[in-house]
Amino acid sequence: MEEKITYARAKEILQNQKISPKGLERVFLYESLGRVLAKDIFASEDMPEVALSNMDGYALSSTMIELSKGIFTILGENPAGNEKKVELPLTQPYAIKTLTGAAIPHNADILVPFENVNIKGETLEINAFPKIGEFIRNIGDNYKKGEKLLSQGVRLNANHIGLLASLNHIFVEVFEKPKVGILVSGNEILEIGESKNNPHCFYNANGHLLYAKVKENGGMPKLYPILKDEKFSIQSCLKDALEECDLVISTGGASVGDYDFIQAISKEWSEKIVFRGVRIKPGQHIIYAHFHKKQFFGLPGFPNSTLVTFELFVKAILTKLCGMPFKEEIVEVTLQEDLQKGDKRLEFRVCNIRHTRGKISIDFEGKKSFQSAILNNFCPLDNARVGLAILEGNKLKGERIPIILLNC
Amino acid sequence: MEEKITYARAKEILQNQKISPKGLERVFLYESLGRVLAKDIFASEDMPEVALSNMDGYALSSTMIELSKGIFTILGENPAGNEKKVELPLTQPYAIKTLTGAAIPHNADILVPFENVNIKGETLEINAFPKIGEFIRNIGDNYKKGEKLLSQGVRLNANHIGLLASLNHIFVEVFEKPKVGILVSGNEILEIGESKNNPHCFYNANGHLLYAKVKENGGMPKLYPILKDEKFSIQSCLKDALEECDLVISTGGASVGDYDFIQAISKEWSEKIVFRGVRIKPGQHIIYAHFHKKQFFGLPGFPNSTLVTFELFVKAILTKLCGMPFKEEIVEVTLQEDLQKGDKRLEFRVCNIRHTRGKISIDFEGKKSFQSAILNNFCPLDNARVGLAILEGNKLKGERIPIILLNC
Repeated sequence: MEEKITYARAKEILQNQKISPKGLERVFLYESLGRVLAKDIFASEDMPEVALSNMDGYALSSTMIELSKGIFTILGENPAGNEKKVELPLTQPYAIKTLTGAAIPHNADILVPFENVNIKGETLEINAFPKIGEFIRNIGDNYKKGEKLLSQGVRLNANHIGLLASLNHIFVEVFEKPKVGILVSGNEILEIGESKNNPHCFYNANGHLLYAKVKENGGMPKLYPILKDEKFSIQSCLKDALEECDLVISTGGASVGDYDFIQAISKEWSEKIVFRGVRIKPGQHIIYAHFHKKQFFGLPGFPNSTLVTFELFVKAILTKLCGMPFKEEIVEVTLQEDLQKGDKRLEFRVCNIRHTRGKISIDFEGKKSFQSAILNNFCPLDNARVGLAILEGNKLKGERIPIILLNC
Repeated sequence: MEEKITYARAKEILQNQKISPKGLERVFLYESLGRVLAKDIFASEDMPEVALSNMDGYALSSTMIELSKGIFTILGENPAGNEKKVELPLTQPYAIKTLTGAAIPHNADILVPFENVNIKGETLEINAFPKIGEFIRNIGDNYKKGEKLLSQGVRLNANHIGLLASLNHIFVEVFEKPKVGILVSGNEILEIGESKNNPHCFYNANGHLLYAKVKENGGMPKLYPILKDEKFSIQSCLKDALEECDLVISTGGASVGDYDFIQAISKEWSEKIVFRGVRIKPGQHIIYAHFHKKQFFGLPGFPNSTLVTFELFVKAILTKLCGMPFKEEIVEVTLQEDLQKGDKRLEFRVCNIRHTRGKISIDFEGKKSFQSAILNNFCPLDNARVGLAILEGNKLKGERIPIILLNC
């Protein structure tokens, strides 16, 4: 077990974990939204399979231009989806009306858009000839048969759904969602809906926060009963969760208090604890372990710390369990105000992220300073995105500071 | 009707539309994920309601420090959620073990963390006294009764779910989802699963693309039957959709082809067309109208153009119908390569977005140049985000260019 390690070391440990996603599952196209693709997708045909018009226009042959003196005879029309094969005779300057998406007639190599012609009865006066092939989509221009179009590990969004539909993929192979057990412990925790008779009690924010976080990040959450600070029941529930789930997250009980039984249990299973304690603020008491060959995180109980440690550490493992590469989006911004650090630990401070005139900036509007317990710092009143400013030391207005972009 | 307007004018028109969200709906907390909050949320109590310990430590009174010479007698312990009110006697230097989250005993004003003490039987040797109030969370430090914690118009994410749970909000008032009708027309369009006997036919990418896009953006999509280019059936389906939906999006039939009946229908109802044609590439043939007092967009039929015009225009209206303010995230980046523009229209070119060493950059890796018809340009093989580079003219390597960030 490594103890009180640096943030960089903790990240390195998590990045080096070799974790395989779960098995495959076939789901209907619509249910694949937000799921992680389990197989590369290759084109089964050239696209397009025949040369197509990319504009509404008239198809003709470049070999007739000189002869034509700009006047062509219109020979019928050729709409998109036309089932007949259309051939342009080369006996005279003929043009075939060829609409967007229609196949270019055999023998034609020029498409003159509507904008460039005057129509007089059956004849066409052409003001300007496009180049050969202009406005024509050739066989395989979009992609060629056998070309890789989507990669395993992509989390499918609406754009992918459109592409998969265009490929006639009705069922999609995705990775099964990892099951994530959520354990909340603490004598002071009430489930929502319970009546509160005691001002020292708090509603279960962490359980529901983590439930929603796991869902957002592609896992399948399971909430276990709220546990009192009582060793036997915590131990037995944790064992159940480790049997049933791929990843177990507990909150509370990971700091140094006497009532923190999860830590005691961790000690009993000590050969499997990977690290305990990271020199950061908030969240220094985080535990990461392999228990019963499963992934385990003991997160601090303050919702703000729970959230920060979820973002910094749990996400790295959950993402791998989902079959995706883990990437953090970090941007450097120029500070608009001085920032004082509270102590010597590396600090992650919640900020609002603004996009103004092409620049990203941050501010701390509405943020309360008593960070550890405050979830509302993560919920700006104005729909702003939030990020975590990484504070290595005090920073002055005008200095640059790295920000981890969150919820995007 | 305004025709062939500039991009800026089109955006101005859309931004100025006064559109109200639909009615309210009460949904269970978990179902509120991704929904738009319909009411401001205020704190019903101070948080915390009593002063709380923010560390595991010993609570004592500053009035006893001088007398104590650093030695205090331990008087029992006080866990989180303790139902008894604990009072610190001031007759001698006493300290009460007070764990994280527990109420600070009456008369105590200093909390000494475990790290700063040595325990000898019943007595405590204190190495360093924290300041009065340090490590103590006072009444209302997180928020005060009546304080606004969440605003109407916020799209709820996991952080909000955690906050709402902490407030014991089990049902949440959200805006009803706007119903969005999706009409796809074109003789060349096959539904997925249908057999393809003709290389000029294409599977319905747009319908499913828009279905998923509408879902991602908070609407409730309804797919109508695929329509042939046949005026009567298009007109009657469009009327049905306008009756049933808040917003109708049609694709195909909005360009200048003879078979483009939707445009003809638009002309019949011309008093309600707001604009037709925007001088951009791709997507110049877009139509925006108010038909039957509903919102209508006629989008071009090429999936790439459909997608770009959805992002640039439809989203602005859909977002308002959902009850949210519309904000585009634009960042300026430095080009790593020269960019040649195809024609004089303002161009929106799909790019990959990279976050490397704190900097955002873009590239065009894997992008095909025949833009109009290519959906795979929006689906990078490596899970990169995509954006739209806004090209006003040719740009050289090293120049700055604005990018609209997509799918985030």
